[in-house]
Amino acid sequence: MSKTNAGRFFEDYSVGEVIEHAVPRTLSGGERAMYHALYPARHAFYSSDEFARDCGLHEAPLDDLIAFHTVFGKTVPDISLNAVANLGYAEGRFLKPVHMGDTISSRSEVIGVKQNSNGKTGVVWVRTTGSNHLGEDVLSYVRWVMVRKGNVDAPAPETVVPDLAGSVAASDLVVPEGLSFEGYNFAQAGEPHRLSDYNVGEKIDHVDGVTIEEAEHMLATRMWQNTAKVHFDATARDGGRLIYGGHVISLARALSFNGLANAQIIVGLNSGAHANPCGAGDTIKAWSEVLDVAETDAPGIGAIRLRLVAQKAEAEPFSLKGDDGKYLPGVLLDLDYWALMPV
Amino acid sequence: MSKTNAGRFFEDYSVGEVIEHAVPRTLSGGERAMYHALYPARHAFYSSDEFARDCGLHEAPLDDLIAFHTVFGKTVPDISLNAVANLGYAEGRFLKPVHMGDTISSRSEVIGVKQNSNGKTGVVWVRTTGSNHLGEDVLSYVRWVMVRKGNVDAPAPETVVPDLAGSVAASDLVVPEGLSFEGYNFAQAGEPHRLSDYNVGEKIDHVDGVTIEEAEHMLATRMWQNTAKVHFDATARDGGRLIYGGHVISLARALSFNGLANAQIIVGLNSGAHANPCGAGDTIKAWSEVLDVAETDAPGIGAIRLRLVAQKAEAEPFSLKGDDGKYLPGVLLDLDYWALMPV
Amino acid sequence: MSKTNAGRFFEDYSVGEVIEHAVPRTLSGGERAMYHALYPARHAFYSSDEFARDCGLHEAPLDDLIAFHTVFGKTVPDISLNAVANLGYAEGRFLKPVHMGDTISSRSEVIGVKQNSNGKTGVVWVRTTGSNHLGEDVLSYVRWVMVRKGNVDAPAPETVVPDLAGSVAASDLVVPEGLSFEGYNFAQAGEPHRLSDYNVGEKIDHVDGVTIEEAEHMLATRMWQNTAKVHFDATARDGGRLIYGGHVISLARALSFNGLANAQIIVGLNSGAHANPCGAGDTIKAWSEVLDVAETDAPGIGAIRLRLVAQKAEAEPFSLKGDDGKYLPGVLLDLDYWALMPV
Repeated sequence: MSKTNAGRFFEDYSVGEVIEHAVPRTLSGGERAMYHALYPARHAFYSSDEFARDCGLHEAPLDDLIAFHTVFGKTVPDISLNAVANLGYAEGRFLKPVHMGDTISSRSEVIGVKQNSNGKTGVVWVRTTGSNHLGEDVLSYVRWVMVRKGNVDAPAPETVVPDLAGSVAASDLVVPEGLSFEGYNFAQAGEPHRLSDYNVGEKIDHVDGVTIEEAEHMLATRMWQNTAKVHFDATARDGGRLIYGGHVISLARALSFNGLANAQIIVGLNSGAHANPCGAGDTIKAWSEVLDVAETDAPGIGAIRLRLVAQKAEAEPFSLKGDDGKYLPGVLLDLDYWALMPV
Repeated sequence: MSKTNAGRFFEDYSVGEVIEHAVPRTLSGGERAMYHALYPARHAFYSSDEFARDCGLHEAPLDDLIAFHTVFGKTVPDISLNAVANLGYAEGRFLKPVHMGDTISSRSEVIGVKQNSNGKTGVVWVRTTGSNHLGEDVLSYVRWVMVRKGNVDAPAPETVVPDLAGSVAASDLVVPEGLSFEGYNFAQAGEPHRLSDYNVGEKIDHVDGVTIEEAEHMLATRMWQNTAKVHFDATARDGGRLIYGGHVISLARALSFNGLANAQIIVGLNSGAHANPCGAGDTIKAWSEVLDVAETDAPGIGAIRLRLVAQKAEAEPFSLKGDDGKYLPGVLLDLDYWALMPV
Repeated sequence: MSKTNAGRFFEDYSVGEVIEHAVPRTLSGGERAMYHALYPARHAFYSSDEFARDCGLHEAPLDDLIAFHTVFGKTVPDISLNAVANLGYAEGRFLKPVHMGDTISSRSEVIGVKQNSNGKTGVVWVRTTGSNHLGEDVLSYVRWVMVRKGNVDAPAPETVVPDLAGSVAASDLVVPEGLSFEGYNFAQAGEPHRLSDYNVGEKIDHVDGVTIEEAEHMLATRMWQNTAKVHFDATARDGGRLIYGGHVISLARALSFNGLANAQIIVGLNSGAHANPCGAGDTIKAWSEVLDVAETDAPGIGAIRLRLVAQKAEAEPFSLKGDDGKYLPGVLLDLDYWALMPV
């Protein structure tokens, strides 16, 4: 029996199976410092214990996307080590803030499989849930990936395609317990714009650009214990190392501070596409479009639904898709998410 | 109304205005670890809780320059986003050590404005103060920058040039409460030299050199939430990314350990010039000159005033200015500061 | 008297001398986060407080090699600043886990000197011991280095070559107090293989590769306060910066998770050779060979003795030595160590 993990192939997944992912992880202020060194992250709720206290929490949690990457990273050895492509996300909900000292684990339930007509690959859908050491769920999302078959002669499984929501309903968003934006300090947060200042359809160019270095995306990806070799081994792939798509998500989200400083807390992940590969040397810019706004029952707190697009600096501002409906070559990320914002 | 911050222009500043800078920041052991990974920082007071306890504190504070960069970084979106040049520092005093768990905020008072004769730019002086979550001031310094006018037709303001001290008087330096060097452990600190071993006029070549990488200066600059795009976007400026001047300050200060290991604690910032731009690939060396020595009222504690110069490795040792009084091209930093040292 | 440290030369060491190394260091969660960002470290005992609790400890300690690098780094200014080569390690024993908040100091006793026949260099053997702020020893190992003479006319000292064990006897390994693997969670640890699944002579190719960047090895080496200039100054050496051998050790150990996830805790360091220099741009792979297995008195805990080899990606798998008994050019590290593993 080989001692090393070759990863799973398409025929190794069956609908209903629950995979407990390995290596739980305790997070500290170290991960926060690294995150804020890797990305220009400035949302005040995650930067200042005092700001978080003014919002009703006992301290600043770790950034929402630290939770996402930590949960996601654990799934890689079981879900995407042999993935050809990361196809999409859906039904993502942030269920509880993650704090320093929390130990995070991940598990995934296989909720769909569909062999491709070429007989060599298939699509696997999993619902991944992250939980803390108290057994409380902190995050849940669906992801689907295209995976190679290990044995092309393995029989095709019965096709099961899950019925996924196009977006998370505003009424299903979970506001962190005790959160209130009634005493929200706009000066400390960095911008005066509240939910009522944003209009559906409004687009915001976040102005700033960041050129990515190899060392940075590898530091980030390793911190989440994501082991996919294409991110680390320059000899593994023509064109060199492929940057972890989550690195681009975090970079774009951080850049979006400039114009969306008050979209404080990500609570929903509706969909996401890594439109084109990203490599070191690329300079990344970001823009957002307001897709929807909603109320919540929590004091002073509304929700804003945003499209967040990361693109290369040399692409036209507000690049997205061509006339053929395909993403333009300069577009890297098209993410659809919900964030909490003062009303 | 645009949602993004275009930064302030010269005509947007008026003497007497106080700007509360956004995004307070809670610091942890993570920032200390990052700082010690980014710079060869070894001053024992900031490296060891036990050493700091032997000096009368309850634990090691965060490095003095972590406080400086954190306070400085917050000012960038309001003060220097449209700055043409960072012209100088004066009257800097470190008022209280910053500890893990402290939340740091910054505010700046405009204390001077002077339009340049070209009518297109002007100089703005601000006194910036950093404070912790208890409302205690931790650092105060004056900085002046040259800023573009947004509207060249805006009327020139009444010129106000603040009267700034050439250096902080030794009697105005603040020794951290409870600090004593009477039980100072020279072996642990790394060098045997005490204040009486240094002579005014003495120059020290700190020997070691460090070649800077893009990833490093960006990690550092982002950690301080400094958003000036020239540091991050390789497409923003001919010649590529410009390294944050504070990165050179920290690098040179850390290199100065070799010869000044007992200049433990920076307490005053008299003046500073970023003499030439610095970019990735440059190899930095440092030298110091003893400018003054002074007593303090605290047990066993003296103060040493130092010129700290960072230069490129290929420049002549002890490079500074040419016969024309201008900085030589290989000189990057000329900093004048006070540090506490055992007598 | 020069203020800077020129380092010691061969004639400056005498057998029996004990050198207390400078700058003790307090470690926090920041160092752990950085370590896990710099290396693909995933051993569960060091990743999860909960996993460590299930093994009988009150929390996850810092990674074993964080202890090693911290202790080692302090010795550099006194032992290897003028070293021509790092020749070997022996009799390394990890004596006590290092936890967040511990302050680590190092001291070295000179246990051997031997001038080389060329009269210009000599070999110095030291036994280095790291201890925490409670005065408890956490690590002890022997290292020998070749050091230049400062004065070639200095008389040769009496040759003393210490009698060193070829490997640490299994009975001398120290199991952390309270450790038990009786409730060991293999699913969380990431692999099902227990000690009885490994056979002496078995070789494991750890599959994954990592391409090293300059910024990464410098961040790592600085974090341990290792000041040897060849690691930082691109102008100091033909061929550019030489990567700290310990960086390769940590990288290879982390890569060995894939196949040795349950070799949880390094407890012994039998020998080690940095076979060839390593530089940025090299892609590193690793393989292991099982050298021995042993029992311990602790519940459910065995010991596995492993050869860990780091090699360049382009070298043949399982590269080691040529017919001439010399390391092949693609081999970087040959390390012999003991780790604890569930029986």
